[in-house]
Amino acid sequence: MCELLAMSANVPTDIVFSFTGLVERGGVTGPHVDGWGITFYEGKGSRTFKDAAPSSQSHIAQLIKSYPIKSEVVISHIRQANRGQVSLENTHPFTRELWGRYWSYAHNGQLSDYQTMLATKRFQPVGETDSEMAFCWILEAIANEFGAIPPVDMQPVFEYIAQLAQQIRDKGIFNLIISDGDYLMCFCSNNLSYITRRAPFGSAKLLDTDVVIDFDKETTPNDVVSIIATRPLTNNENWHVMQSGEWKLFRLGEIITEGGSTELCAS
Amino acid sequence: MCELLAMSANVPTDIVFSFTGLVERGGVTGPHVDGWGITFYEGKGSRTFKDAAPSSQSHIAQLIKSYPIKSEVVISHIRQANRGQVSLENTHPFTRELWGRYWSYAHNGQLSDYQTMLATKRFQPVGETDSEMAFCWILEAIANEFGAIPPVDMQPVFEYIAQLAQQIRDKGIFNLIISDGDYLMCFCSNNLSYITRRAPFGSAKLLDTDVVIDFDKETTPNDVVSIIATRPLTNNENWHVMQSGEWKLFRLGEIITEGGSTELCAS
Repeated sequence: MCELLAMSANVPTDIVFSFTGLVERGGVTGPHVDGWGITFYEGKGSRTFKDAAPSSQSHIAQLIKSYPIKSEVVISHIRQANRGQVSLENTHPFTRELWGRYWSYAHNGQLSDYQTMLATKRFQPVGETDSEMAFCWILEAIANEFGAIPPVDMQPVFEYIAQLAQQIRDKGIFNLIISDGDYLMCFCSNNLSYITRRAPFGSAKLLDTDVVIDFDKETTPNDVVSIIATRPLTNNENWHVMQSGEWKLFRLGEIITEGGSTELCAS
Repeated sequence: MCELLAMSANVPTDIVFSFTGLVERGGVTGPHVDGWGITFYEGKGSRTFKDAAPSSQSHIAQLIKSYPIKSEVVISHIRQANRGQVSLENTHPFTRELWGRYWSYAHNGQLSDYQTMLATKRFQPVGETDSEMAFCWILEAIANEFGAIPPVDMQPVFEYIAQLAQQIRDKGIFNLIISDGDYLMCFCSNNLSYITRRAPFGSAKLLDTDVVIDFDKETTPNDVVSIIATRPLTNNENWHVMQSGEWKLFRLGEIITEGGSTELCAS
């Protein structure tokens, strides 16, 4: 499996603290040594840093830990390969352009017997992972559903993505993070937690390495920052553990809509 | 204007030497301070490092200079903004997926009265540059011309791109670098030079900073490496200065086809 990390914030915020915890799971406190990646949105632009090397040993991960990039939406992933070899083209997050926006995506889980269902024409995978096939299929489906120009209100697009995620879950485990740079959506198949930090801010201590941060010194009273991760990253805060089939749509740090229930989505 | 740099090689090769010269032009020996980017292909995968900060002062450019990434195809660009603000979404190289390959592209020049001609549907620009519009238009045109599955022999695709580049040149200056990760094509509108290095290798001295390299120590006798740049990067080698309208298609370091003439393409 893999580990996911994502952030939605109402002010450009760096993710150095959370990323520092995550990369330990790429070879030190966790077995996810088959590459890693992180996508930062800055305005309409985005940039992705990737490496097929384990995150705990990666020069580029060291840069990300030491050079704060401020962003309102971030998606990161560390990989333990199941489908597809260890190589750059199989490393998440994946990015494609649709409707003049960069869409980014990362997946934790494993699918079976998915090739026929997930075949696409317009968006095609470059690598061999089930994850990238599912991403291409989702984009093709929303392009077909909503046409050449997206709706002004993007919520229906993400509600449709939640329906698609439910369908993909018939093929296996599908924990999903997806963003168009403005909205950030997460869908829980079996392992996803989140926390929303806002004033009054306290201090937090990473689970995976001996680092403590006092958010009160790093923030202003109006900051709202949500972090989503496969497993909680800190051991002194209350993370919300998501249920199977549950999804949340974040924008500017806040949950703006949500759905799913264990009844609907028993796995 | 901007400065372009690209490499095609028959073995994974690092571009640290050439990039070290290029970044000096981003604020020290040249005025190109409005961001920079570099795309490395590694197998079918690619990764792009970008920054809206001047390359000569960029932490990320420092990493690229100190951490050799070996690649067979590289495209880099440092920007002096004319159309579009200084921001990440306007920073080259641009990347899109077509036919299950990542296409990357950078442009030097400036177009006028291009909006109607370069309007697209499937591939849409995220930023505001004439350059990204032209890239989207080229991809849309080759997708329309060659259909859902690309030809096994990709040469006709690049010959068609050369025709498209000639058309774009009617709207202004259009020096182009484009690659699908295997082939690397350059089209000269007014400023492009290249050099192919092969055994016996000698030493080379950068024009823009006091760095000398002895390629004989860095290579094997079978290595073939071509470098393309807006202006020659070294002062003790014979660079080929391209003519207006001339284009070259490289693969594994060698020119495999070429075209254009000053008669056809007087600017």
